[in-house]
Amino acid sequence: MTVQAAKKTLAFTGCLLDRADNVRADREALGGHMNWRARLLTLDGMMPALDDAGRLAWGTLADAPEDAELVFLGFDRGEDGGTGRACFAAVPAQGDPRPRMANPQLWNLMAALSPEDLALYGGARSLVDWHARHRFCPACGGPTRIAKGGWQRDCLADSGGCGAPQFPRTDPVTIMLVEYDGRLMLGRGLGWPEGRFSALAGFVEPGESIEEGVAREVLEESGVRVRDVTYIASQPWPFPSQLMIGCHAYADSDALTIDETELAEVRWFTRDDVAAALGDAPDAPFTAPPPHAIAHHLLDWWIAR
Amino acid sequence: MTVQAAKKTLAFTGCLLDRADNVRADREALGGHMNWRARLLTLDGMMPALDDAGRLAWGTLADAPEDAELVFLGFDRGEDGGTGRACFAAVPAQGDPRPRMANPQLWNLMAALSPEDLALYGGARSLVDWHARHRFCPACGGPTRIAKGGWQRDCLADSGGCGAPQFPRTDPVTIMLVEYDGRLMLGRGLGWPEGRFSALAGFVEPGESIEEGVAREVLEESGVRVRDVTYIASQPWPFPSQLMIGCHAYADSDALTIDETELAEVRWFTRDDVAAALGDAPDAPFTAPPPHAIAHHLLDWWIAR
Repeated sequence: MTVQAAKKTLAFTGCLLDRADNVRADREALGGHMNWRARLLTLDGMMPALDDAGRLAWGTLADAPEDAELVFLGFDRGEDGGTGRACFAAVPAQGDPRPRMANPQLWNLMAALSPEDLALYGGARSLVDWHARHRFCPACGGPTRIAKGGWQRDCLADSGGCGAPQFPRTDPVTIMLVEYDGRLMLGRGLGWPEGRFSALAGFVEPGESIEEGVAREVLEESGVRVRDVTYIASQPWPFPSQLMIGCHAYADSDALTIDETELAEVRWFTRDDVAAALGDAPDAPFTAPPPHAIAHHLLDWWIAR
Repeated sequence: MTVQAAKKTLAFTGCLLDRADNVRADREALGGHMNWRARLLTLDGMMPALDDAGRLAWGTLADAPEDAELVFLGFDRGEDGGTGRACFAAVPAQGDPRPRMANPQLWNLMAALSPEDLALYGGARSLVDWHARHRFCPACGGPTRIAKGGWQRDCLADSGGCGAPQFPRTDPVTIMLVEYDGRLMLGRGLGWPEGRFSALAGFVEPGESIEEGVAREVLEESGVRVRDVTYIASQPWPFPSQLMIGCHAYADSDALTIDETELAEVRWFTRDDVAAALGDAPDAPFTAPPPHAIAHHLLDWWIAR
């Protein structure tokens, strides 16, 4: 499996919308697309809704609450080869109490979606969730208002605010396969079920490259120094807005010093162990991460290379 | 030149501090390190100060304004092989009017710093600047307070706020060499001097992988479709807090449709053109990006591979 071929299987990638960034800043063009043809993604809080065919359900802009902030997601593909329809999602009302984090019901819904629909949902979810959590200006505390079709929020200078623009947030996270002598380091997070292991991961911090983030995170969590960090693949992870950056690195030693504030266990697994876990073998020594997780993809890559 | 060797030349990487994340959340340990041995990075607004040896200048915590918020950067290396000293930086006072963006004076100061000092300054700058721009909670508008040694801010629930934590922001940006028939696509931004060209770049958006971000950005800015995106290298860019992700891609065509709201020019350059620009040849057809920029490194990589 080449990296290119493998990429096709990465969850939350492959959205077919044309993001049409030129429309975002063009108030007149954007307004012109907010017409009867436009589609509104049906969301229950942050949960997707499915139509009878198991696809993402859509309504029209008339379905949005009158004062809802609408995010322009892009254009779908015109069914007759013509211009696609403008697609929007509504920001939840302030104080909406519905669940935002991933939960079993959401995982079931997501498993039913096509890859393209899952990617569309993930991107829309990250964006409306960002709006819902950024109604105020972090610089001055004043109210903010949606701008540029939802790809910006503006602090209201005409209401006495500082006027600073805010932009949607994407948080880079490194997630890494660490290899020593043909074995792979995997960890079990605090509170995870017994037997569930995945790749170590952590946010890239200010002042770090991807490679430095990988090395720091592995050293912090396992006490192991790594070298020769290489990039494998990336995918968005909309809980709420991570960019997962999958890497591989070689360890200088297999002696572990576990950070027990982060991890319950860290262990080294052989190629046979990993293959058994990916194959859901009954005697597999651990449970592999689910296919939606980039860690699953990284393990596939390691076995196939 | 291998990618590994080339990485050593990437600006803003190679900080020697031990970030000691275990100390951040341990209020007692952190307090214990805020003693007479601790060092305070000397900053004039966001500008670095240099000592007589041309290194970053440091004072003690006594040099900080009494009510200053202090960010724990990590430990330096003990000169006698013992424990290093705790290093801090102070968040500028609210309303500090001094310049924050990169300017010629800053570039001169940065050019004088060692790679390790430049990396330390860049990371510290990103972090204190984030604090200065996040004194309020974006979710409820209430005041926030520094937490976990400056790696978090907390909305003050005891003052009626929502209590949401905020984390330092790192914005992933793709920057890419696009190749067609042995030539490279480079662009000149609006307002750039005549003759200055660099790699196209843009923020990764919610719902995108790195590879999808590269393809979208190139299509938006140049009208060209790309394939076979590969990762080359990354570096932090502290103006204010980007993670630059350098990539290479092959174009399907060299026919350009330039986005004139973003770019003044886009042109294709030969290997000889790029080599001449990197060598500052008097007859070079364009001016290369400065060595601090990852684009310079990417061009070096392209010539050397």
